Amino acid sequence: MTTTETVLRTIDANLGAATDRLFDLLRIKSISTDPAFTGECRRAADWLVQQLRGLGFEASLRDTPGHPIVVGHAEAKRPDAPHVLFYGHYDVQPPDPLELWESDPFQPRLADGRRGREIVARGASDDKGQLMTFLEACRAFQENGGLPCNVTFLFEGEEETGSPSLPDFFAANKQELGAADLALVCDTGMWNAATPAITTMLRGLAQEEVIIRGPNRDLHSGIFGGPVLNPIHVLAKIVADLHDAEGRVTIAGFYDGVCELPEEIAEQWRALDFDEKTFLASVGVAHPAGEAGRSVIEQVWSRPTCDLNGIVGGYTGPGAKTVLPAQASAKVSFRLVGGQDPNKIVAAFRAFVRERLPPDAGAEFISHGASGALQLPFGSEALNRARRALREEWDKDAVLVGCGASIPIVGSFKRDLDMDALMIGFALEDDRIHSPNEKYAFDSFHKGARSWVRVLAALAA
Amino acid sequence: MTTTETVLRTIDANLGAATDRLFDLLRIKSISTDPAFTGECRRAADWLVQQLRGLGFEASLRDTPGHPIVVGHAEAKRPDAPHVLFYGHYDVQPPDPLELWESDPFQPRLADGRRGREIVARGASDDKGQLMTFLEACRAFQENGGLPCNVTFLFEGEEETGSPSLPDFFAANKQELGAADLALVCDTGMWNAATPAITTMLRGLAQEEVIIRGPNRDLHSGIFGGPVLNPIHVLAKIVADLHDAEGRVTIAGFYDGVCELPEEIAEQWRALDFDEKTFLASVGVAHPAGEAGRSVIEQVWSRPTCDLNGIVGGYTGPGAKTVLPAQASAKVSFRLVGGQDPNKIVAAFRAFVRERLPPDAGAEFISHGASGALQLPFGSEALNRARRALREEWDKDAVLVGCGASIPIVGSFKRDLDMDALMIGFALEDDRIHSPNEKYAFDSFHKGARSWVRVLAALAA
Repeated sequence: MTTTETVLRTIDANLGAATDRLFDLLRIKSISTDPAFTGECRRAADWLVQQLRGLGFEASLRDTPGHPIVVGHAEAKRPDAPHVLFYGHYDVQPPDPLELWESDPFQPRLADGRRGREIVARGASDDKGQLMTFLEACRAFQENGGLPCNVTFLFEGEEETGSPSLPDFFAANKQELGAADLALVCDTGMWNAATPAITTMLRGLAQEEVIIRGPNRDLHSGIFGGPVLNPIHVLAKIVADLHDAEGRVTIAGFYDGVCELPEEIAEQWRALDFDEKTFLASVGVAHPAGEAGRSVIEQVWSRPTCDLNGIVGGYTGPGAKTVLPAQASAKVSFRLVGGQDPNKIVAAFRAFVRERLPPDAGAEFISHGASGALQLPFGSEALNRARRALREEWDKDAVLVGCGASIPIVGSFKRDLDMDALMIGFALEDDRIHSPNEKYAFDSFHKGARSWVRVLAALAA
Repeated sequence: MTTTETVLRTIDANLGAATDRLFDLLRIKSISTDPAFTGECRRAADWLVQQLRGLGFEASLRDTPGHPIVVGHAEAKRPDAPHVLFYGHYDVQPPDPLELWESDPFQPRLADGRRGREIVARGASDDKGQLMTFLEACRAFQENGGLPCNVTFLFEGEEETGSPSLPDFFAANKQELGAADLALVCDTGMWNAATPAITTMLRGLAQEEVIIRGPNRDLHSGIFGGPVLNPIHVLAKIVADLHDAEGRVTIAGFYDGVCELPEEIAEQWRALDFDEKTFLASVGVAHPAGEAGRSVIEQVWSRPTCDLNGIVGGYTGPGAKTVLPAQASAKVSFRLVGGQDPNKIVAAFRAFVRERLPPDAGAEFISHGASGALQLPFGSEALNRARRALREEWDKDAVLVGCGASIPIVGSFKRDLDMDALMIGFALEDDRIHSPNEKYAFDSFHKGARSWVRVLAALAA
């Protein structure tokens, strides 16, 4: 019997006690957004410190301007082992609306769900249950001679409020946190209940606001309309130009740095049981829009986009007003992939607008941030080891998924600590995170812990 | 000496008394929008009834849900004389901001202005002074044997609040008011202090709101942007299409019924001392926009337009939000000329939008009214007689001007009473109507009254 299998047996044997520990954490009302629960947030942080210390790890609670951050350090049994940083968050969303919960959100219970047992509580999936899968894996290793990897633990209590204390904390503790080779983030999900997933692509985001100015004040359109340029017309022409008839973005150089998917991944995605019709129907439409010839999954995970998020100009109240406005503005965002340079994209967008300005029109730009895509290279050794480990546990290939939206913490790891992140999580799409009756499949908890045993062992192999 | 010249001499001889009468009317604080001045509005109406009766005319005050309307009837000395309806309004704008007036707005005074004497008071130009030019002309005829035309007088007290009582009043008194052949409206201006003008073209106006709908709710653009159609993109493409590169409106059939100007009028307009650069500079621009090859005057007076008056969709507050909105909307107005059919234009616009909707996009339309252009035919006999009359008084050809905006009362005459209107007024561009220190040139008052003598005589000749 190999060591890993011994450790897995420990996971199985300890499952009842592990569930009790998770329930203890779920009972703590660590709602980060509500000042009434500041004490509860601290209690959750303290609880985690005690758990880490109970496992023989160094751990401490670090105060921040907001809720405390827990940092722990555990040494591998072999000194040349790799060093990973595991990130999780102990804070949860408020449980409102309370009347829609079938039981007290902070009295966790096991229930029989559609696909087996479920742990029902606020935070069961996001993120206490996921976090505890990793801690239970570490516990099982400790009971069997020690960890295969050096591990830094980082648990924050402000994820649900945008992690405001994290950037300063990273800056102040760069040396301590940056010693790890790789971040492990377990805030993501499975493809479905039977298929694990590793999130390897996070799109970047550049957000621009453009204000088109024309006459020096709002005018009567009956007297000036026509001979005086109308900023709404100008803006509409420009933003209408941003896409061609095939749905491709027309900004010069926009696709520089965008690569086609490796055929292996493209093949994997094509084989997924993803029904475009159902996806579109869920939001009331029937026809895929966007880039012609690209599947929905491809568009959302691996293709860049240009989205108009807002537009406003002139009179927008009830009824009508014959005004020729002095200005009109639009908010435009770009989802970026691969090697697209967010600063070049912003500059190219601004040039695109300026080139199209008629005489007398002016353009002002406001940047609302720009960050590039994050991509764990498909050939990465850590990724390959994690894929093998998950395959062993689930008997199915892990899907290498993308994520259309951003996960800010992963950007921080890359930007502030120069660290790639391996995003593995066991949440399911129907976990009702942020909603009443949040749950975590008992299998996610159990096999999640087993998966981390395998992943840690594989990373150290 | 002809009769007309006798009448003109009476005008000149009575000028002091005429000024006193105008001052009496200007002292009445007939501010229609402020309920505190309801009694003053009634007092102005009563004053006008007394003036008409004092001239030997039948006159009465008619109650309405708002301020009273004055109607008077005067018979010409010759039974086969033409019948005109003279329209004016006795209500005025509030004088605020009071501190910017150099004297009490309701204590009229004569002042020395840049171009001669001026009558300074709220309502001096808009519309009490203009109204009294016509009454003084009638008085001078009465003192010399009688009027050359049958005259119906119509003075309202709600022009500054949108004439809410007029449509019902027209409907209820169609026979009485509709007996006239032609309306005379003196709420317009001169081309400049030396050059009279007759307004013969009023553009029509159709106002549409279009709402483009896409997904069934606002979505996260990072997850749905691309594969799900974005109503802002759809709307921008459609409205950007409304004009071609030459500034012409691209809606099918839009120019049906639009005629080129008679060369005589085009020539007159080209000869006007109108400086496009100054006009554009006054609103902060330097280059004429709109239809290529059309002068500013032509565009505003005699060409139809399509103006975007408002646009809104998605997030428009501070900062950024990665939303893909469920809808976006625009307010579009059309200025119409000549024989353009407002209903056909609206239908063609709606078809234009619908033809361009991608799959899944829906369009809803809200009409905010549609009325056609009003044009006094250039060959009209009344117009020609008025032009000759004004030339005699001012020793300059009257400019036949258009008006880019609408004058609702003229539409009512046409629509409700089937009556063309001859719009002659003596206001100047710098009369500061609606503003502090409103004034009316004393020459406008004096030669305005003389002009009406000549016009009435010419219409009856």
